[in-house]
Amino acid sequence: MKTAFIGLGAMGRPMAANLARAGCLHQVWNRSSEKAVTFVAAHKPVAMAATPAGLAQDNELIFTCVSADKDLREVIGAMQHGLQPGTVIVDTSTVSVDTSRELARALAGLGVEFLDAPVSGGVEGAINGTLSMMVGGDEGTLDRIRPVLQHLTTRVVYMGPSGCGQATKAVNQIMAAGINQAVTEALAFAEAMDLDMDRVIDVVGGGAAGNWFLQHRGATMTQDSFDPGFKVALHHKDLGLCKAMMKTLAQGDKGLPIVEMTLIHYQRLMEEGFADEDISALYRLKRRLFEKDEG
Amino acid sequence: MKTAFIGLGAMGRPMAANLARAGCLHQVWNRSSEKAVTFVAAHKPVAMAATPAGLAQDNELIFTCVSADKDLREVIGAMQHGLQPGTVIVDTSTVSVDTSRELARALAGLGVEFLDAPVSGGVEGAINGTLSMMVGGDEGTLDRIRPVLQHLTTRVVYMGPSGCGQATKAVNQIMAAGINQAVTEALAFAEAMDLDMDRVIDVVGGGAAGNWFLQHRGATMTQDSFDPGFKVALHHKDLGLCKAMMKTLAQGDKGLPIVEMTLIHYQRLMEEGFADEDISALYRLKRRLFEKDEG
Repeated sequence: MKTAFIGLGAMGRPMAANLARAGCLHQVWNRSSEKAVTFVAAHKPVAMAATPAGLAQDNELIFTCVSADKDLREVIGAMQHGLQPGTVIVDTSTVSVDTSRELARALAGLGVEFLDAPVSGGVEGAINGTLSMMVGGDEGTLDRIRPVLQHLTTRVVYMGPSGCGQATKAVNQIMAAGINQAVTEALAFAEAMDLDMDRVIDVVGGGAAGNWFLQHRGATMTQDSFDPGFKVALHHKDLGLCKAMMKTLAQGDKGLPIVEMTLIHYQRLMEEGFADEDISALYRLKRRLFEKDEG
Repeated sequence: MKTAFIGLGAMGRPMAANLARAGCLHQVWNRSSEKAVTFVAAHKPVAMAATPAGLAQDNELIFTCVSADKDLREVIGAMQHGLQPGTVIVDTSTVSVDTSRELARALAGLGVEFLDAPVSGGVEGAINGTLSMMVGGDEGTLDRIRPVLQHLTTRVVYMGPSGCGQATKAVNQIMAAGINQAVTEALAFAEAMDLDMDRVIDVVGGGAAGNWFLQHRGATMTQDSFDPGFKVALHHKDLGLCKAMMKTLAQGDKGLPIVEMTLIHYQRLMEEGFADEDISALYRLKRRLFEKDEG
């Protein structure tokens, strides 16, 4: 099964690298070509496709990993004339349920299967091949490509028809927002209490408040390191999708409290120039609660 | 080292049982004596002390596990005349830093060492002996009793002088509040989207939003089961302590957003008669966000 990867960003690059190391990757393409040039230089014999359409023509299984709905629509549009019936597109991006469903419908008209297959597990999950993948679309198609997915994931769960993967990712992003609130608020409090932060992270992580984010971002945030990871602007975008979904799910103007609070906090971070920092930069705001006013 | 346990509630009973099974427990006492009667019947040759003072006289290492500051002060007061110099009291309750420090000071006057050693890991952690313990007080004393603690815990972290264990527990409780918000809000959203909840819990739990609470309370809350676990009223009490600490740490009226929000939510649950349910009963409120209004 000739396999290609489109989108060599923070998540896509290490995922593609895992496929390449497993001998499962034929071609790559990236919007800014330098990333693709660097990638193929490091992962011979993987080739760089000249265009998305050319890549579509040459491959039977195509992974996409881009930032937003617009990017996905663009790249699928650019592939369109090259796509062959029987091709499978696995979109690992986080986009809206609606975009996923529309693309799946449109591609079905070309005989192309589209799976919405967003992932969670952070950059480290992408690097280590330990991502968790939530899949919407045709289950038989998913089963057919599972041997390839095993190089990227430790858990692949079929969630239902088109869009169900993205719906599950929305759930994941809401939970991630609350956990970010939880961890940053608690650790800022710990710092204000002059506790030994490494010990706090160790002992709290071993109990009922234990979580992935504390384990992977606790030490970095308390050391003022906010390299992504997962960018504030991207999580803000995802929570905006959740808020829009909420409008169709709930009556009146009922909002999700954690989502609403986190959108406000991320907006503030973005206005202050921290859009490209890791979401743990929320620690910057929590810490301010304890600052002594001057004068 | 003759060892006793006071307070055979949801957490204390399984902890005492682990000590008994390891052959490390001599006596128990409980405010309502039925629990002590039942316990000693099941854990021979452990004996039931007639009074806290009698228990204090007969033991060198005394664990306490009670619900609140007042209970702890009462039971320490009741032990006072029996306590021998050299005795060590290990308080696994969650109480205020101030109460811990005051008791440690008062007991030091009697030659008694007091460690504040609250735990996290839930009822299942207490049953399985996998609690995480955060300890304040004298480090040498802690090291002396570590062989006994290994029957209760998989992680014991020395946090600093008296009160530092409780300060760390406050951090833990803030984080637990945020995680409860995160998990209940996200799962209520998932339910409103008609997703398969078992699959959501499985796949989200394997990614960057993974956490203990989802793993241990996700399935029960979505099946309308809110048996404690950890009671709403107790977490509400703990968050009240955090709010009070915040007043001394921050200037003006700055509050901790997650703590303030969760206090309001727990207050509502308590007013509705859910005080003795597990904290995952917050799911009841989140789910209402999606209810269709009648008529």
